[in-house]
Amino acid sequence: MTELYAVIGAGALALIFAFVRSRWIAKQDTGTDEMRVIAGHIQEGAMAFLAREYKVLAMFVVVVAILLGVSNAGMEDSHALIALAFVVGATCSGLAGFFGMKVATQANVRTTAAARTGLAKALIVAFTGGSVMGMAVVGLGVVGLTGLLLFFLQSGIFGTGEVLSGQEYTRILNVLAGFSLGASSIALFARVGGGIYTKAADVGADLVGKVEAGIPEDSPRNPATIADNVGDNVGDVAGMGADLFESYVGAIIGSMILGLGLHTSANIGGEPAGIVSLIYLPLYLAAVGIGASIIGTFFVRTSEGGNPQTALNVGTIIAAGLMIAGAWFTIQSFVPDGIYFVFNGGGVQVVNDATLTMEPGSRKVEAGMGIFYATIFGLIAGALIGFATEYFTSGDYKPVKYIADQSRTGAATNIIAGTAVGMMSTAIPIALIIAAILVAYYFAGLYGVGISALGMLSTTGIQLAVDAYGPIADNAGGIAEMAELPAEVRGRTDKLDAVGNTTAAIGKGFAIGSAALTALALFSAFTTKAHIQGNGLNLLDPQIMAGVFIGATLPFVFSALSMLAVGRAAGAMIEEVRRQFREIKGLLEGTGKADYARCVDISTQAAIREMILPGLLALIIPVLVGLWNIEALGGLLAGVTVSGVLMAIYQSNAGGAWDNAKKMIEGGLHGGKGSDAHKAAVTGDTVGDPFKDTAGPSLNILIKLISVVAVVIAPVLVSFHAPDTTAQAPTEATKAATTASAADHQGDEAPAADGLIKVAERVER
Amino acid sequence: MTELYAVIGAGALALIFAFVRSRWIAKQDTGTDEMRVIAGHIQEGAMAFLAREYKVLAMFVVVVAILLGVSNAGMEDSHALIALAFVVGATCSGLAGFFGMKVATQANVRTTAAARTGLAKALIVAFTGGSVMGMAVVGLGVVGLTGLLLFFLQSGIFGTGEVLSGQEYTRILNVLAGFSLGASSIALFARVGGGIYTKAADVGADLVGKVEAGIPEDSPRNPATIADNVGDNVGDVAGMGADLFESYVGAIIGSMILGLGLHTSANIGGEPAGIVSLIYLPLYLAAVGIGASIIGTFFVRTSEGGNPQTALNVGTIIAAGLMIAGAWFTIQSFVPDGIYFVFNGGGVQVVNDATLTMEPGSRKVEAGMGIFYATIFGLIAGALIGFATEYFTSGDYKPVKYIADQSRTGAATNIIAGTAVGMMSTAIPIALIIAAILVAYYFAGLYGVGISALGMLSTTGIQLAVDAYGPIADNAGGIAEMAELPAEVRGRTDKLDAVGNTTAAIGKGFAIGSAALTALALFSAFTTKAHIQGNGLNLLDPQIMAGVFIGATLPFVFSALSMLAVGRAAGAMIEEVRRQFREIKGLLEGTGKADYARCVDISTQAAIREMILPGLLALIIPVLVGLWNIEALGGLLAGVTVSGVLMAIYQSNAGGAWDNAKKMIEGGLHGGKGSDAHKAAVTGDTVGDPFKDTAGPSLNILIKLISVVAVVIAPVLVSFHAPDTTAQAPTEATKAATTASAADHQGDEAPAADGLIKVAERVER
Repeated sequence: MTELYAVIGAGALALIFAFVRSRWIAKQDTGTDEMRVIAGHIQEGAMAFLAREYKVLAMFVVVVAILLGVSNAGMEDSHALIALAFVVGATCSGLAGFFGMKVATQANVRTTAAARTGLAKALIVAFTGGSVMGMAVVGLGVVGLTGLLLFFLQSGIFGTGEVLSGQEYTRILNVLAGFSLGASSIALFARVGGGIYTKAADVGADLVGKVEAGIPEDSPRNPATIADNVGDNVGDVAGMGADLFESYVGAIIGSMILGLGLHTSANIGGEPAGIVSLIYLPLYLAAVGIGASIIGTFFVRTSEGGNPQTALNVGTIIAAGLMIAGAWFTIQSFVPDGIYFVFNGGGVQVVNDATLTMEPGSRKVEAGMGIFYATIFGLIAGALIGFATEYFTSGDYKPVKYIADQSRTGAATNIIAGTAVGMMSTAIPIALIIAAILVAYYFAGLYGVGISALGMLSTTGIQLAVDAYGPIADNAGGIAEMAELPAEVRGRTDKLDAVGNTTAAIGKGFAIGSAALTALALFSAFTTKAHIQGNGLNLLDPQIMAGVFIGATLPFVFSALSMLAVGRAAGAMIEEVRRQFREIKGLLEGTGKADYARCVDISTQAAIREMILPGLLALIIPVLVGLWNIEALGGLLAGVTVSGVLMAIYQSNAGGAWDNAKKMIEGGLHGGKGSDAHKAAVTGDTVGDPFKDTAGPSLNILIKLISVVAVVIAPVLVSFHAPDTTAQAPTEATKAATTASAADHQGDEAPAADGLIKVAERVER
Repeated sequence: MTELYAVIGAGALALIFAFVRSRWIAKQDTGTDEMRVIAGHIQEGAMAFLAREYKVLAMFVVVVAILLGVSNAGMEDSHALIALAFVVGATCSGLAGFFGMKVATQANVRTTAAARTGLAKALIVAFTGGSVMGMAVVGLGVVGLTGLLLFFLQSGIFGTGEVLSGQEYTRILNVLAGFSLGASSIALFARVGGGIYTKAADVGADLVGKVEAGIPEDSPRNPATIADNVGDNVGDVAGMGADLFESYVGAIIGSMILGLGLHTSANIGGEPAGIVSLIYLPLYLAAVGIGASIIGTFFVRTSEGGNPQTALNVGTIIAAGLMIAGAWFTIQSFVPDGIYFVFNGGGVQVVNDATLTMEPGSRKVEAGMGIFYATIFGLIAGALIGFATEYFTSGDYKPVKYIADQSRTGAATNIIAGTAVGMMSTAIPIALIIAAILVAYYFAGLYGVGISALGMLSTTGIQLAVDAYGPIADNAGGIAEMAELPAEVRGRTDKLDAVGNTTAAIGKGFAIGSAALTALALFSAFTTKAHIQGNGLNLLDPQIMAGVFIGATLPFVFSALSMLAVGRAAGAMIEEVRRQFREIKGLLEGTGKADYARCVDISTQAAIREMILPGLLALIIPVLVGLWNIEALGGLLAGVTVSGVLMAIYQSNAGGAWDNAKKMIEGGLHGGKGSDAHKAAVTGDTVGDPFKDTAGPSLNILIKLISVVAVVIAPVLVSFHAPDTTAQAPTEATKAATTASAADHQGDEAPAADGLIKVAERVER
């Protein structure tokens, strides 16, 4: 268990790092009084939103915790303590959002202040603000998860001794999955709520302020401008933080469950202790990633006149390189030598030198090497998805140029072009995800798929720092505009804002790719826990096909719900902004004073109200389908993952492309600002807002949340579907299973034998 | 075989009916000289397009026929004659498009002429024009398919005798699937080409003519107006005809293959002759549907002042009622008494009174009743999907009103609202499709799913008549406008145009629902033919999951390709229309003469050029994936079906809703024509055009085409993937299979035993 303490240590290090950095931020110059007032409004609005959101979520957490505790109490494979794990997971996610946003709303004005003197310092302030979020996320994730695990191991509730039995580990991990469920639930609400908030404000500010009244986006005369800047924080900082927190935790716990599957089915001559490391390895890799990320942050430095983009890239690349090296040593240290994955007729088993016998048609991979390859291929695939994202959403390449060109013939052709680009952009990421699945599986089975997701996410600490840097720089520009600072200050913050884009695109690639792989890992974990691993999920079974259909429909319904919510909220905001322009004398001329608080209030209320229905749907539907048919739930997971990933990529990239097409035209193309092409492009950008900032990112969470729900409820469902036969003929069935198991290595018959095991298991229950 | 001659007779009757009706149309009054000139332009443009399209497709057909003939020659389960079936299928599809469009382009001007005197006569002319298309489609489908079948049976090439062996039927149906492939290939090209044609013209006419120049849609001053009207014919008449032709043929052949599966696996004491009827039943039901449709058309009559909507509804409902009654008698006559479907551990088997033994957990359904229920539930589900479509796309209900409301805040909110409505509208149809799958499977296994699709499509004759009536009425209005006839004439044609909408929505519901069920039936047929029925398609196999991902991505890429094609073509059209307004003196004032031919040419060229890539992709990708891994191809079929159905519903309904929101505003809502809300709604409608008329409907075909490709290439793939083991240990494997087969009825072990059969089959090959 020493290693687990070391893992906690790494998590604590991340938290200390975040704390030190946040103190440093607090000490920076905050500029003029006017800047402080504006920044105060933003911080106040953001914190008020978070407080109200958390109040609602607290009730939700209590209710779900009770339900979880009651339904899991006394279960063979689970324990009422899952309620504790759930609460801790939800709390950690909430805390990460809180700290991250608190510091982000301090860093924004300090970035503006620093930008008055130069670019280099401003970059450091903004990036440091982001790194607090990044480190808080990974620190809380690792400390929370490992802390719970250590508590369970130390307490002896689940079993005693240095190495527990397979059954005992099963219970612990089932309970630990509650942590992931807590994180995912909060993430969904935070993402949906934050997404609705930010887009309602943005659409209101843009459509009425920019298009109708013709004033700049961040003009202090625009009543929705504070709400818009608050939105950047609650959507892009807190929302994204919660998103990556759940991906990170989900990938770790999913891989641990798959590692346990290998552990319990291993055939290494009665020495299970040797490969307990497969269960813990995801935590070790996460710890290494924290170290790599912290070191990486020290390389984000630029001189005046240098290129900030390079600084961000250097930090990220160094972290990735360190991660690869660290992963190599970690895997070599903890995965014992002489252990192999043997692939045999569709299944994977762990054997050692003593038990290794190769049947015809089977294949072996040295375990350590296999895991290492899965890890780095995950990293590589994530980066490549990022480059593909960049290609389809950056103004430097053909797709966005095409959208800009199509803006000349009006909004309709702009929209059609953006839709087409978004749909087309799904092909390459999906190809890379498929490649990652096949390669990871080839080297380490389903465990490899989980590890591969973890490989993508291991440097979340610095990835998220770069991601959160974006909205801080964006806010800094807004403050410069509102405080009417000299144009050169706004120029510097614009430059900061622009440079984060490539790195942010790559971060998005990691987020999408890892969501897909994490969902698949959780999907596999679910099938293990639901005892449908052996027989498999046969697509020819109409009930499973029905599950696939239901799952695939959810992202459509979910996107529709969030867009309708944005529409409603934005409508209210538009009315309010128009009302203020109409009723507040001199507002447009700059002599009247806008009522910012009213707009902040509208966004807050709408976001809280509108996040409830989609959030509950995501939780309830898998439960209902699982109660109907547990294998249909498996089909649902496959359907929601495939369709969700596609819709997420489509919507995110279409939104990103529309945004940058507008920026290209604002940069002077096709007549620049004020031209007809610009008006068309603004329409496209406005349509893209809910696509890329509400619906798209929420789907990333939806697929993981539904998978986690399935994993968590699997033990309950298993006992629900077979409550009466528990006592029936266990001996015969077990005997049949044993016989079948013995036949497991007889070459091609393996699938059939798996079928027999499954049948035996069914009869047993 | 007497029955098959009767089936051919029914098909011939449909063709005779179509011929008589087309003669009647030709004799109707064609109005003024000016009308004749305009109608001449439209007919000329439409026929010129078809001629060029067919020239390109002829080359394609020859190449594919040669490839099919060569690759299937000497195959155990197939025959080089598949090339013949393919050519006949392609030819029939082409002929149906040709006749349908020829008559539609005659009926349009005659409808206008009739509308000068009254509504009742105009309705009859337009509907009769549509019914020629409807009857041509079902007539050619049934005559072509049954004719080939009779030829194969009579010629003795595949075997002799009244009843052939299972293997002989297998070969015949595999070859007959070539007919379906021919129909589907032509359908895809026709739909994509027609869709691109019509939308390029429409966008050009709308954006430049209506929005920029401010002249009415069908004004003779608009250079794109003839192309626009030609587009209605090539897209909505020929394209839709080809679409339903392939659905109809696909549902018949898919059900026949599934019927064969029941036939060969039946356990009825060595009397297979008794249930050969399961193979032929789909043809019998199709014949009954033709009769029902023909009778239904006689009830489409209205008096002056009557409601034309009622007339169309009465005809359709009578046809459906007759179909239900006819299906009952047909099924009772041809499905022998005392035959049961026994459902046992996931599989279905046909037994008779003599062999019926019920194991614990198994369930039996009287075959005739089961098939009848599957048929009528298909009809009901199709109608319900239609009502759901109507709800989401008609101006009478909340969703479209919401889009109209959102138009007040501009194009962006209109687009977001339409997108949300489209996505939301997927839920109910998918729920109904799931219900249809589960119910049909419950009553008659996978065969029931095929029969259920056929139930939806059995009255295609009259459904398509109503569908094709729409563009004829639309064209009639266009001609009235261009010929500058009195407003009351246009008023009558507008009324005709409007009334078809509900019935058309229901027709769309049938098209979407039947496409999903047909694709699933073909999917099952593929797995039978690819010998993966027993083992199943395990979603946990990463290669199968990869297949699902690939399949699910295709509709996105395919939609993107067709939208980009429309964008390019529309761009060229916009430039041309602007050029004519700029260069032709007096055009806008009505003194100059527009160069219609140039616009027709642009649409034609673009459509022909742009249909090639998507069409080839749809054919090549399943082949490539199948060559890689035949089970991954199974996953691909599932993925493309699920994602394709969702995307088709989303895009079709979003487009329909935008269209009707615009119409609501044009009817006076929110300021009516010329208001800002109207401009926003026109943008939405323009975006919706490629959604609902190009991408959406093409996906319906895509999913069936890919499934048919898989069915057709399955025998070749099977031998490709196991060429070397053909000679190896056939006896042992057969023995194992027999043993396993004997164990097939031992209760719950069935799936495992199926697995063994599968393994044995694999080894055998």
